[in-house]
Amino acid sequence: MRIIRFIQKETQKPLLAAVTDQNEIYTLPVSNVLDIVEHAKQNKSKVIDLINNIIKDSLPYPDSLEELELLTPIEAPEVWACGVTYQKSKEARNYEATNGKLDATTFYDKVYDAERPELFLKSTKERTIAPNKDLYLRSDSNWQIPEPELGLVLTGDGEIFGYTVGNDLSCRDIEGENPLYLPQAKIWARSCSLGPAILLTDAVEDPYKFEIICRIYRDEELLFEGRATTGQLHRRLDELVSFLKRDNIVFPGTVLLTGTCIVPPNEFTLADGDKIEIEISGIGTLVNVVKTQVAKVAQ
Amino acid sequence: MRIIRFIQKETQKPLLAAVTDQNEIYTLPVSNVLDIVEHAKQNKSKVIDLINNIIKDSLPYPDSLEELELLTPIEAPEVWACGVTYQKSKEARNYEATNGKLDATTFYDKVYDAERPELFLKSTKERTIAPNKDLYLRSDSNWQIPEPELGLVLTGDGEIFGYTVGNDLSCRDIEGENPLYLPQAKIWARSCSLGPAILLTDAVEDPYKFEIICRIYRDEELLFEGRATTGQLHRRLDELVSFLKRDNIVFPGTVLLTGTCIVPPNEFTLADGDKIEIEISGIGTLVNVVKTQVAKVAQ
Amino acid sequence: MRIIRFIQKETQKPLLAAVTDQNEIYTLPVSNVLDIVEHAKQNKSKVIDLINNIIKDSLPYPDSLEELELLTPIEAPEVWACGVTYQKSKEARNYEATNGKLDATTFYDKVYDAERPELFLKSTKERTIAPNKDLYLRSDSNWQIPEPELGLVLTGDGEIFGYTVGNDLSCRDIEGENPLYLPQAKIWARSCSLGPAILLTDAVEDPYKFEIICRIYRDEELLFEGRATTGQLHRRLDELVSFLKRDNIVFPGTVLLTGTCIVPPNEFTLADGDKIEIEISGIGTLVNVVKTQVAKVAQ
Amino acid sequence: MRIIRFIQKETQKPLLAAVTDQNEIYTLPVSNVLDIVEHAKQNKSKVIDLINNIIKDSLPYPDSLEELELLTPIEAPEVWACGVTYQKSKEARNYEATNGKLDATTFYDKVYDAERPELFLKSTKERTIAPNKDLYLRSDSNWQIPEPELGLVLTGDGEIFGYTVGNDLSCRDIEGENPLYLPQAKIWARSCSLGPAILLTDAVEDPYKFEIICRIYRDEELLFEGRATTGQLHRRLDELVSFLKRDNIVFPGTVLLTGTCIVPPNEFTLADGDKIEIEISGIGTLVNVVKTQVAKVAQ
Repeated sequence: MRIIRFIQKETQKPLLAAVTDQNEIYTLPVSNVLDIVEHAKQNKSKVIDLINNIIKDSLPYPDSLEELELLTPIEAPEVWACGVTYQKSKEARNYEATNGKLDATTFYDKVYDAERPELFLKSTKERTIAPNKDLYLRSDSNWQIPEPELGLVLTGDGEIFGYTVGNDLSCRDIEGENPLYLPQAKIWARSCSLGPAILLTDAVEDPYKFEIICRIYRDEELLFEGRATTGQLHRRLDELVSFLKRDNIVFPGTVLLTGTCIVPPNEFTLADGDKIEIEISGIGTLVNVVKTQVAKVAQ
Repeated sequence: MRIIRFIQKETQKPLLAAVTDQNEIYTLPVSNVLDIVEHAKQNKSKVIDLINNIIKDSLPYPDSLEELELLTPIEAPEVWACGVTYQKSKEARNYEATNGKLDATTFYDKVYDAERPELFLKSTKERTIAPNKDLYLRSDSNWQIPEPELGLVLTGDGEIFGYTVGNDLSCRDIEGENPLYLPQAKIWARSCSLGPAILLTDAVEDPYKFEIICRIYRDEELLFEGRATTGQLHRRLDELVSFLKRDNIVFPGTVLLTGTCIVPPNEFTLADGDKIEIEISGIGTLVNVVKTQVAKVAQ
Repeated sequence: MRIIRFIQKETQKPLLAAVTDQNEIYTLPVSNVLDIVEHAKQNKSKVIDLINNIIKDSLPYPDSLEELELLTPIEAPEVWACGVTYQKSKEARNYEATNGKLDATTFYDKVYDAERPELFLKSTKERTIAPNKDLYLRSDSNWQIPEPELGLVLTGDGEIFGYTVGNDLSCRDIEGENPLYLPQAKIWARSCSLGPAILLTDAVEDPYKFEIICRIYRDEELLFEGRATTGQLHRRLDELVSFLKRDNIVFPGTVLLTGTCIVPPNEFTLADGDKIEIEISGIGTLVNVVKTQVAKVAQ
Repeated sequence: MRIIRFIQKETQKPLLAAVTDQNEIYTLPVSNVLDIVEHAKQNKSKVIDLINNIIKDSLPYPDSLEELELLTPIEAPEVWACGVTYQKSKEARNYEATNGKLDATTFYDKVYDAERPELFLKSTKERTIAPNKDLYLRSDSNWQIPEPELGLVLTGDGEIFGYTVGNDLSCRDIEGENPLYLPQAKIWARSCSLGPAILLTDAVEDPYKFEIICRIYRDEELLFEGRATTGQLHRRLDELVSFLKRDNIVFPGTVLLTGTCIVPPNEFTLADGDKIEIEISGIGTLVNVVKTQVAKVAQ
């Protein structure tokens, strides 16, 4: 059972809906999935059961998923992200930081093995975009890549109630130049996308068995394809969340991206018009095109 | 199946809930019953079925109806009311207008039999109070009575989706002096109460079989008791609504009170501290105490 | 000094502005004139002086009054109105109520001379329209007229801080048939307009010297012109407000229309497309075209 | 001319006010100083002149600054901060990162001299506290210090319209362990304070002549005092803002802290109950007490 949001054509208002395993769409009588999650919790019932009850006698929505104008499945007030949680990510960031001279032990090696993971504030509601909307490239970077990541969708208590797909667009050159530039390599307007759906935790047996595929197309030609599985994660999901919660405010609907597992070749950088697809098994495929920023925003 | 709203003690926030025929209370995951009504409509299902699905596996709320701090069951943006829809009301208002000389045909006789009913704007959200809160007496009237009425709860399309109990506090002297004073005899701060519940139309076989009982207590002694039934209504409910809708804006959640059927004896007037109970079969009992207004509001 | 609101072309957002006696327009840094009124009151200064200070070194707005897309000068939560406050209005309403047989003393005669004036709730924010927008005719009336009135703009304490022009569109046939139909003869969608400006009380020496002119055009030809002065008012403005305040809630920005003084000939009724101009000296001219309602709203 | 916000005792609502050089307080008729800033800009006038006009005939507020319950002078949606903008800060952070072995060139040296400054998202509206409220210590750090900083208050276009005082509470041990932990060393609940006032840029001749003093008291005894001046800043304020604006969204009211210039001795760490005063000449003194977090938030 997955959750989506979309713009209803007639009213131009957002609708929340459940998507069944058969891809049937059923609108829900609430605007925020958290209302249902909280309600299930208070009733000690499963979210998935509550939703199944709600939609039991309902009519499926006439449009198919492909026809809908999707929104992010939740208006995440903040998107946090984890770094160096996969071996592959450690190697890639070491490469950036050492100009390819991989002989020295770096802070990437250290953080990979340390008790405390790397956590950073990746995006805010206003900077995060929906499926099929344009991501923006940063105007002062020459080495930009998508980072396909599993996202944990959290309650205000930091409980994981669902999984989504996130694209943590990143600037390898800025980050590689100095680790203190990390926020600038990560946070800018339209540098993050979420969606297309939230897969409820109730519907997932083992979150370490998600398959992740990332494809990049240029001029309709496949430029890059990479695959990974959350089984390669070097940390536990609960562990990542527990560090996010430490002394911090977790807003209801916060999304925690769990780190990068697929890295395009070092010579690759995104270009205006490239289409990025990130597919996670059971959740769906998040598609966005990247655009060179317009002058006004970049200033 | 009835709908209530109440203040949750822990959070001090309003909760919406369904009350079963066994008086079990189940909170609902939406804040406004209209969201459920609209959802059922879009799915061509019954509101009552949708609610039954939602609460199927839920735990009943631990507190009983009596223990809850009730709110009006819906935040009605406007409360409209009908006049002279019962024989009894016609007689009473003739009496006011003629000082008891009931020999002349008055506009009350005329409106009773005319095609067009009497309709007036009785109250607004800010002037309407919840069960168990204090109604205010008007400071410049010496002849005030409760008007116990069946209320129709409407969607923005003017469809009746539920029934509630309304108390249309009225000044017989001001109204009797001149029909042009009607708004002043009807509209003032805290002159209207609604509740305790909305009975869904889906749960009602025949809305012309409601029994209405009104009791007024002074110093814990029963001063007055009157009974009536909506079977005595001189007009159809749909007819009343159709006139409200004519060229008008009907806000979602508007309540239309359907007229007075129980009138205390002509020598009776409410006094500070009087407790009014209005009971309608299947909906519940709306209880309010009346207070003489404090100087500041009355000015 | 007058106050207007208009839609700024570039941002499509409302702006508040002051208009000087030389018709120069100066935008103000607040969105609601009440903020300035309250501020002046707390500082025991005149509203007009405060505004003059604010705009002292400002640049006049480049567009002229005629070029602006005006809004109502205040978002009045409620518009109340008074009836039979002029001799002319008493005669007209007697005529309606008696089918022209003016031999009997009616409740209009009585209310004209009584201590208590006639007051009614004429409109709400959602039913009130701006200058140059379309008023709607009621679909079930064959005798409709504009009622040109001086409007008192009130604080939440019921103090008059400004004057505006109001058009209280009315159905003479519905009202004439039965005084109990008054609310239906007065309240419907888009039956009231306010504007174009609020003239601050500080700028008015004698509010009983306003000249009111009403003109009705059909096919660009003048059909009717009537004139009156507030000197003909049978009641004091403070007296009218004091009755509105009695036991009632007065919302900040409530407008009280003070009654009709100009009545078109008895054979006149408004038709689709008629243009109504109401001019009050020192305040401005409120212009609206009346339209036959579209079916959807009228239902 | 300075701007403050405070809670009005009677209404418990926030008020905006101007404070003159003579410490007289004048309330303003808007709730957000940005409304005045935007208005001045549109009128090509100085903010300070507009405010002087507004308050010209006003009465000073009866309470003194000390008696008011201050709020942050602006509800900054985001607080960004710069790192290593002073020589002193570079040395301190080198010390943390090398355990005192200051022989190696680090990323702190590099960023100090690089074209691109270090920028990071320090806090959000919900994490930022007002003067005289409690800051929270992070529960998993043993080396925490205040960072007294000049704050730039920005419009949505990234223009500096005022200066304020900021306290960027930081964990030296977490940051020192690994630069990738910077967000965790900086962002947590109540880890940032702003205030007491905004000094308008119009009132400042040279922003590189601010004197900054930081004092830490324990048990009412002065433990530490440090002084610096913005003349020691290694970068230009405009330069810092230009990097914040790059491809980013700057929300109206965003505050950019300009880096630390005063660092307590390396053996010092904050303890529950310590009082921190940060004074910047012409702006005022920001006072907060630090508290060990309660278990519930820290979890």
